[in-house]
Amino acid sequence: MRDWIDSYEKRAWQTTENGTVRYALIGLGWWTIDVALPAIESSDLGEVTVLVSSSTDKATRLADENDIAGGISYDEFHDGAAADEYDAVYVGTPNAYHLEYAETAAELDKAVLCEKPMEATVERAERMVATCDAADVPLMIAYRMQTDPPVQRARELIADGFLGEPVSVYGHNTQSLLEMIPDPDQWRLDADLSGYGTSVMDLGIYSINTTRFLLRRDPISVQAEMVSKSRGVRRRPGRAVFVAADLRRRRADDLDLEPARPRRYASQDHGNRGTDRAPAGVPRECSLHLSRGDVSVTVEHRSFDAEREMEEEFDYFADCLLGDGDLYPDGRHGLQDMRIIEALHDSAERGEPVALE
Amino acid sequence: MRDWIDSYEKRAWQTTENGTVRYALIGLGWWTIDVALPAIESSDLGEVTVLVSSSTDKATRLADENDIAGGISYDEFHDGAAADEYDAVYVGTPNAYHLEYAETAAELDKAVLCEKPMEATVERAERMVATCDAADVPLMIAYRMQTDPPVQRARELIADGFLGEPVSVYGHNTQSLLEMIPDPDQWRLDADLSGYGTSVMDLGIYSINTTRFLLRRDPISVQAEMVSKSRGVRRRPGRAVFVAADLRRRRADDLDLEPARPRRYASQDHGNRGTDRAPAGVPRECSLHLSRGDVSVTVEHRSFDAEREMEEEFDYFADCLLGDGDLYPDGRHGLQDMRIIEALHDSAERGEPVALE
Repeated sequence: MRDWIDSYEKRAWQTTENGTVRYALIGLGWWTIDVALPAIESSDLGEVTVLVSSSTDKATRLADENDIAGGISYDEFHDGAAADEYDAVYVGTPNAYHLEYAETAAELDKAVLCEKPMEATVERAERMVATCDAADVPLMIAYRMQTDPPVQRARELIADGFLGEPVSVYGHNTQSLLEMIPDPDQWRLDADLSGYGTSVMDLGIYSINTTRFLLRRDPISVQAEMVSKSRGVRRRPGRAVFVAADLRRRRADDLDLEPARPRRYASQDHGNRGTDRAPAGVPRECSLHLSRGDVSVTVEHRSFDAEREMEEEFDYFADCLLGDGDLYPDGRHGLQDMRIIEALHDSAERGEPVALE
Repeated sequence: MRDWIDSYEKRAWQTTENGTVRYALIGLGWWTIDVALPAIESSDLGEVTVLVSSSTDKATRLADENDIAGGISYDEFHDGAAADEYDAVYVGTPNAYHLEYAETAAELDKAVLCEKPMEATVERAERMVATCDAADVPLMIAYRMQTDPPVQRARELIADGFLGEPVSVYGHNTQSLLEMIPDPDQWRLDADLSGYGTSVMDLGIYSINTTRFLLRRDPISVQAEMVSKSRGVRRRPGRAVFVAADLRRRRADDLDLEPARPRRYASQDHGNRGTDRAPAGVPRECSLHLSRGDVSVTVEHRSFDAEREMEEEFDYFADCLLGDGDLYPDGRHGLQDMRIIEALHDSAERGEPVALE
C-alpha cells in the first residue's frame, strides 16, 4: 500500500530526462494560453518558442505578454516562417482546421501534437494520418488522460484483474457550454468547424476514448440515440446522447492484449446541460474510486489540476520525441475515435446499431 | 493494491478453524445482550451456553428469550453452578465487579475475557493479573480494536514506515452519555463502580490503548487537565480532558519493537459533551484515512459494525484458547492502562507531569 501510494504519480512511460522540445502553439484560445502554455513552461522537456494566430499583431502581442520569442500569423506559418525556432507544433484550433496545420508541419518536418477530436470528419482525419505517415513525422492526439495518474493506475488494476471481466462501463460528461462561453456563434456550436455540431465531438469523445484505453479494446458496433432539448441555440442545441457500444473485438494493432470474451459497455449522457461539476477535461480534483467486496477505496490527488495534466502530456510527448518511448495515442488511434463518432451519428440517424470495421 | 484490498479483512492472527469455546456471559446489560451475544452466535469458534445475572429469574428469562441453554445468578456462578457448561467467561459488569468474577472463573479454571477498563483501581487490576497467573487461566482485556481491520492495517503501515517517525497522535472521543442512558444514577457516573467517575475510564481509554497498540510504545510520563462543565449530574459531571503523554520509552515486554527516538503524543478531548457521532466503540462505519505527499486514500469498510467488531474479537480470543496464538492484549497490558489512567488523574490533581515506571 505504501509503495502503491508512493508510485501513484509515477511516469511509467518515462525514458529520458534530457533534452528540450521547442513548440509552436497554433490557435491561441483560452485553453492554449491559460493551460497549455504554462503547462509547457513548467514541464521538464518543453519550451514554447513561437505563437501562431490569425494575425501577426495578435500573435506578437500575446508573445510579448507571455515572454515568448516569436509570434507569427497562420499565413506566415504556412510559408515556413520561424521554422528553425521550433521542433513541434501543438494544434489547438477549431477541429476543421487541424488538417491544414498538420500538413504544413509535416512538410516542415515538425512533430505534431493535435487536439482531439483530431478533425471534423473521418476523411480529413485519414488524410492527416496519411500525410504524417508519408512525411514520417510523429503525430499524437492530445487526449491527455492517458498520462493521468488515476487513469494509468486504473488501467493497471484492470489489467491485473481487479475488476475481473469488465461487463459494463458507464461514462458521464456534461458541460454548460453557453455558460462557460456565452456566444451562440462559437465554433463548437458550428457543425462545419467542429464536425457534426454535437456534444459527442467535445464531450462524448472523453468517455469513448477513456473506455478504449482502460479496457484495451475497441467497439465492434455502436448504437446511439441523440435528443435535443434546448431550441434557443441556432446551430447546436443541447443534446443528451446515449451510446452503447459492443466491445467484443480485441484491438491487436497497438496494444498487447489478452483475448477477451464478448462484452458490452454503455457510455451515456454526454450533453450540454451541465451540472455544477468542473467542465469536461478541466479536473479541479482528480480522484480514483475502487471497490472490491465490502471494501471501497477513494484516492484523492489534490494537486493534480488541468495544467498539471497538460504538463504530464507534454512531457510524455517530448519523451517520445527525445527518448525511446512509443508514441500513444497516435493518429491511427485518433482516427478510430473519428470512425466511432461517425458510426454513432449514423446510428442515431438510422435508429439501429452500426457495425465498425 | 488489489492484494492489499483483498487482504484488508485478513485475520493475520488466525491459527485454527476448528473447535468451539462455550461462554458464560456475566452482566447482562445492553452491550452484552444486543452486541456481544449475537457476535458470539455469528462467530466461527464461539457459542453462548450460560447467562449470568443478578437473579436466577432475570438470567433464565433472558436465556429463554435468546435461546440459550442456561441462566444462573451471580451467587450461583460463584458457587460453581453450570461450570461444566462453559469454557470461558465474558465479564461485562460494572468495572468494580470485574475482579470477583475473574477470581471465581480462575478458581473454576475458566478463561477470562474481561471488559475494559479491567477494574476500578490499579490495586484490584493487579490482583486480577496475579489471580489468573496463579491459576494459569488465560486473561484477555476486551479492547476490541486490536482485531479491527483498519487498526491492524494502520499498525502494519506504521511499522512499515508509512508515517516515518511518528511525532504526535491526536485522539478525540466524546459521548452524550446521559442522552444514551438518561439515568443520573447509572454506574458509569458512579466513581465507586467505574473508578474515578471520569470519562477517562470509558472514553479516554480508547485513545490511550489504541495509541499504545498502533505505535507499539508506552508512555513514560503523562500530564492531564480535567475540566467539568456540567454541574447538573450528581456524581460525575461532564468533563473535558486533555492528556499529553511522553512516549519515549519503548515497550519491550510483549512487543517486538525497533528502538524509538523520543516522541510525544497528545490524546485530547475525552468528554461527556458529545457531538452527533456514533458513541465511542460503537462504530457505524469503519474507515481508514492515509496520506502521503499529495495523495490521500480513504478506505471504507461498510459492513464492519459493532457486532462484527465483537465477532472478530471473540474469534481471536477463541483462537488463542483453541490454537497456537499469543493472547493479546492480556492482563498485564490492561494493567498498564490502569496505571496510565491513575497517573493521569494524579497529574490533573497535582497540576504537573507524572512519571510512569
